[in-house]
Amino acid sequence: MIIVMKRTCTKQNIDKVIAALKSRGLGANLSVGSQATVIGVLGDKTKLEGSNLELMDGVEKCVPIMHSYKLASREMVPDGRTVNVGGEIIGGKKLCMIAGPCAVETEDQVMAAAAGVRAAGAKFLRGGAYKPRTSPYSFQGTGEAGLKMLRRAADAYGLKVVTEVTDYDQIEIAGPYCDMFQIGARNMQNFRLLKEVGRTDKPVLLKRGIASTIEEWLDAAEYIMSEGNCSVVLCERGIRTFETATRNTLDVSAVPVVRERSCLPIIVDPSHAAGKASYVEPLSLAAVAAGADGLIVEVHPNPRCALSDAAQQLTPEAYQKMFQKVRRVAEAVGRTV
Amino acid sequence: MIIVMKRTCTKQNIDKVIAALKSRGLGANLSVGSQATVIGVLGDKTKLEGSNLELMDGVEKCVPIMHSYKLASREMVPDGRTVNVGGEIIGGKKLCMIAGPCAVETEDQVMAAAAGVRAAGAKFLRGGAYKPRTSPYSFQGTGEAGLKMLRRAADAYGLKVVTEVTDYDQIEIAGPYCDMFQIGARNMQNFRLLKEVGRTDKPVLLKRGIASTIEEWLDAAEYIMSEGNCSVVLCERGIRTFETATRNTLDVSAVPVVRERSCLPIIVDPSHAAGKASYVEPLSLAAVAAGADGLIVEVHPNPRCALSDAAQQLTPEAYQKMFQKVRRVAEAVGRTV
Amino acid sequence: MIIVMKRTCTKQNIDKVIAALKSRGLGANLSVGSQATVIGVLGDKTKLEGSNLELMDGVEKCVPIMHSYKLASREMVPDGRTVNVGGEIIGGKKLCMIAGPCAVETEDQVMAAAAGVRAAGAKFLRGGAYKPRTSPYSFQGTGEAGLKMLRRAADAYGLKVVTEVTDYDQIEIAGPYCDMFQIGARNMQNFRLLKEVGRTDKPVLLKRGIASTIEEWLDAAEYIMSEGNCSVVLCERGIRTFETATRNTLDVSAVPVVRERSCLPIIVDPSHAAGKASYVEPLSLAAVAAGADGLIVEVHPNPRCALSDAAQQLTPEAYQKMFQKVRRVAEAVGRTV
Amino acid sequence: MIIVMKRTCTKQNIDKVIAALKSRGLGANLSVGSQATVIGVLGDKTKLEGSNLELMDGVEKCVPIMHSYKLASREMVPDGRTVNVGGEIIGGKKLCMIAGPCAVETEDQVMAAAAGVRAAGAKFLRGGAYKPRTSPYSFQGTGEAGLKMLRRAADAYGLKVVTEVTDYDQIEIAGPYCDMFQIGARNMQNFRLLKEVGRTDKPVLLKRGIASTIEEWLDAAEYIMSEGNCSVVLCERGIRTFETATRNTLDVSAVPVVRERSCLPIIVDPSHAAGKASYVEPLSLAAVAAGADGLIVEVHPNPRCALSDAAQQLTPEAYQKMFQKVRRVAEAVGRTV
Repeated sequence: MIIVMKRTCTKQNIDKVIAALKSRGLGANLSVGSQATVIGVLGDKTKLEGSNLELMDGVEKCVPIMHSYKLASREMVPDGRTVNVGGEIIGGKKLCMIAGPCAVETEDQVMAAAAGVRAAGAKFLRGGAYKPRTSPYSFQGTGEAGLKMLRRAADAYGLKVVTEVTDYDQIEIAGPYCDMFQIGARNMQNFRLLKEVGRTDKPVLLKRGIASTIEEWLDAAEYIMSEGNCSVVLCERGIRTFETATRNTLDVSAVPVVRERSCLPIIVDPSHAAGKASYVEPLSLAAVAAGADGLIVEVHPNPRCALSDAAQQLTPEAYQKMFQKVRRVAEAVGRTV
Repeated sequence: MIIVMKRTCTKQNIDKVIAALKSRGLGANLSVGSQATVIGVLGDKTKLEGSNLELMDGVEKCVPIMHSYKLASREMVPDGRTVNVGGEIIGGKKLCMIAGPCAVETEDQVMAAAAGVRAAGAKFLRGGAYKPRTSPYSFQGTGEAGLKMLRRAADAYGLKVVTEVTDYDQIEIAGPYCDMFQIGARNMQNFRLLKEVGRTDKPVLLKRGIASTIEEWLDAAEYIMSEGNCSVVLCERGIRTFETATRNTLDVSAVPVVRERSCLPIIVDPSHAAGKASYVEPLSLAAVAAGADGLIVEVHPNPRCALSDAAQQLTPEAYQKMFQKVRRVAEAVGRTV
Repeated sequence: MIIVMKRTCTKQNIDKVIAALKSRGLGANLSVGSQATVIGVLGDKTKLEGSNLELMDGVEKCVPIMHSYKLASREMVPDGRTVNVGGEIIGGKKLCMIAGPCAVETEDQVMAAAAGVRAAGAKFLRGGAYKPRTSPYSFQGTGEAGLKMLRRAADAYGLKVVTEVTDYDQIEIAGPYCDMFQIGARNMQNFRLLKEVGRTDKPVLLKRGIASTIEEWLDAAEYIMSEGNCSVVLCERGIRTFETATRNTLDVSAVPVVRERSCLPIIVDPSHAAGKASYVEPLSLAAVAAGADGLIVEVHPNPRCALSDAAQQLTPEAYQKMFQKVRRVAEAVGRTV
Repeated sequence: MIIVMKRTCTKQNIDKVIAALKSRGLGANLSVGSQATVIGVLGDKTKLEGSNLELMDGVEKCVPIMHSYKLASREMVPDGRTVNVGGEIIGGKKLCMIAGPCAVETEDQVMAAAAGVRAAGAKFLRGGAYKPRTSPYSFQGTGEAGLKMLRRAADAYGLKVVTEVTDYDQIEIAGPYCDMFQIGARNMQNFRLLKEVGRTDKPVLLKRGIASTIEEWLDAAEYIMSEGNCSVVLCERGIRTFETATRNTLDVSAVPVVRERSCLPIIVDPSHAAGKASYVEPLSLAAVAAGADGLIVEVHPNPRCALSDAAQQLTPEAYQKMFQKVRRVAEAVGRTV
């Protein structure tokens, strides 16, 4: 933390700030320049909790220079973590390919999706049984019945299951049916939910909130990790901007930024970012080229009849075609699928 | 819903779209123009759930023309609703003035805050016992002990209590201590929490999410109302933009927009929008001039020692001074405090 | 400027950074903390032009702590500047009320607008003769003929003229017809245009760019002032955000922020922010309550027939009604109109 | 254009809207639904210029369904245009690789940059002689002297020259020294400048404004094309969002969106988007994988001494290394470099 003093500050102002720091066991480094006087805070900044230096006389502003997450930081595991989901490793050389319908609707639908996903070469089946929907009058998901269909379809095709939990009561219900919990964008700062999945030993796929900074996202991961569960995979899925040509704006830069700042693997969801099936393939290839550790893509055996997010779901055929292109780009950047 | 066809669409494409609408009991209005062909959907658009017209051949895009909320709409109660919180009416001529510390910390702190709030003339005491914090290592609130302090302080000074619940288990705990639940910005789309407060008979203060559109906010209110609880008050508290001079950007236009589109009262939180105490007064006056039904302001007996959001909390003295100015602006626009 | 070193930096890295600073005549203040090492740069940071400390080994990042504008800063004129436009003072106790049509169309139109503007009590007539339009196929303005109409109408009713120049060739043409140049939002960083109006002795109304930070806006004002023309008035007119209910999001907080950081007067344009006539009055009242030094409002004798921005223009009658309300709010905050 | 009527509209309201359309030579298609009444406008919407249907009684809103650009649209050239820059074709199978320093500084600097750019395999040299800078106190460029150095360096290594013009007086000066004009992000809506380059026969590289929608960008291209110059190449360079980890947010989705909506080639500038050299390579690979027609990258022989944007410039060695990776990704998606 750096404290920038006002140009008009007095020596007394400065002395009081330094005294305030000392009273909390912190050191101070005074730097008197011709244009600004700056006080550097020495020591553990959590000791500042409960003070408000910005309100002290003569203080212009406080500039944080350190991030607040620790376990999620790159410094913690400089070579990066890998996450093991039932034997499949996320974060290694091989890309993690997750696909499946937005929502689990019927036995036939999810079975056909699983067949297509497997035929393409993916190892993970996704599908939502609990759907967070903007309007209370929209389809809300099939619940535990849907989870059962998902598990059966995955088992039939040798796939791992990733599914979203939207409140903590669902953790106990969904746990037996899935291999990985997904925390959706709307719940990225549902701290109780983060803590509760952090108390399980199941891997967690943590989507970025649509208006969350990368720093807030890593703080959210820290909530899970600080409860003991370090099997966290991040998922970039587009942020909210002024542009309306796409549903959200895929922040592909988040891939190299996360790789630099965090030890956690990062995958990309091009479907929710694009909101339109025709953009899913180019965004998938972009994500892989940028260094993403995998992709989570919406695939539906009959997108025209999907009960939610129909416009952005690929057919199994389109997914298989895309999968081949992903393979080529992956190999071009030294990865495999 | 309007379906815009591609310039290159065939008569067969058009016929198939119309047939798809008819099969769902919907009518179609065909408009063939020199530059575009458009099909208007006649009937209840919820019948379209499960179709995906955008994927049909020849379709360029679908343009929604109706909002999805009903109970929260202005049409439902053209003169606007009022919400009764223990005898105090929100949404009438008199402004609802809520104030208090960001977080309940100690008995002394909340008692002093209540005294200041009351002395200024406010009728509601706010204070958080459960604090949603970006980092797991930040102060998380005093819980039920804090709620007890809040209630005692409010009772001592004849004030109503507004407090945030961040998960649904807290509803039962907090209910006996408060007069109004607050749903925070991060939980605006925590749909389970919305439904649960919707099943109580206690008024709800629903803050806008930092990246939520006004339409999504009204949909969130609809979640509460569709469970039977229509005592909802909206609270604008700033949105996330590129500007960093303020913590968030107060969207003061939301006041007239909500008044036009919704029957619900709307108040403004200048403290979280500004993030800096010196901007709270001008933003409060702006909100009242724009037609807001009240203000929720952070007041702390000793802001420099606040355990959270210290920079934006006013002293009781500053709040009293501001209250007088609010009174003058309120009277200038035909309101009282 | 503060240089934050990487945790892993060596003593040699630090020495090299300090040597680099010294070679440019700058001092260094070293602060070695338990969690971070920070080097404060002492002296005039413009000496750093041409270096790139961020690329030196061991450097994590550079954090600027000073703004780059000088003449536009509050420190320069702590009590704030006033701007004299042909005898009318902007920035004093009295609000500056500017109104008129978006575009000058016909003699009758601008004469009727001027009559209405004057009848309401405003002292400035606005009107665009050169219109920056998103599409080349939209109406582009009436040019010098329009300027003549504007001047005649203003003279007939004793009003000052404010008009936009969109390129520097227009300065010489428009100069004789107007009392104040307006630089529009799209040209806020048209640096050549800024410099050219800075070389005139006519006051300049500088609108904020739709995606410009307040700091960039003040830097743009500095471009004008550094050429010798310090008669600059700032105009907040809404920024681009994700919200679509309004054309732009009025950043009413810019008013107190600018008053704190800059010596320049600031007025507000509620018409372009709102994009809808029914929101203009509440936003005008909000701006005045927040401390704005005036308002620039679009008024058209027959908005339904306006050649541009019709939805947001008020009738003279609506403007007169609004003017009375503005007067009451102005008086409530100690101003006059 | 679709006109949505209010639920409460009368038959008279509807008749008046239809009459207004007819008076302008436009047809109307009336669609009376159970939930909404909608009027479709038939004919050329430019005839609506000067009307304001939104202000008519009973009208809720007008929804545009067509874009305003024509020459820039995909319909105009379904297979896409190519742009010939002195024999090099942009928009074909082969990627257009542009590189060079942010600003032209000295003969040695630009000569060394050109050597590095050529050695890597690129065919275009970029470099700014006129620099648009946020602060008037920053380095403003070397002007015509810089253009001469740029030309000499390009000729020495057989490269084409791309350089920015920031005002229209520079067109005549810069023309003889360059093969392609660049219009920077800040000038995307400097309509006079667009028209003036549109009157030349030199290809134009049009950067996207930092807060411009794709539609506005294509409208800006239309300004150039409507003056007769159809040799326009678009350049995505990052948009302004709330995220601060990168200088701007690269909107990689713009690549497939532009390819779908426009006939113009699109290249990507990863340097300005990232603002940090270490992110340039992953973003370059992402852009190529997404289908971009080329890259414009900042390369400086000694980035640490660059007079502007130093943090984001690559060394020639880093660029050469990146170039090889770009080649592999290009081949993976069926392109060459």
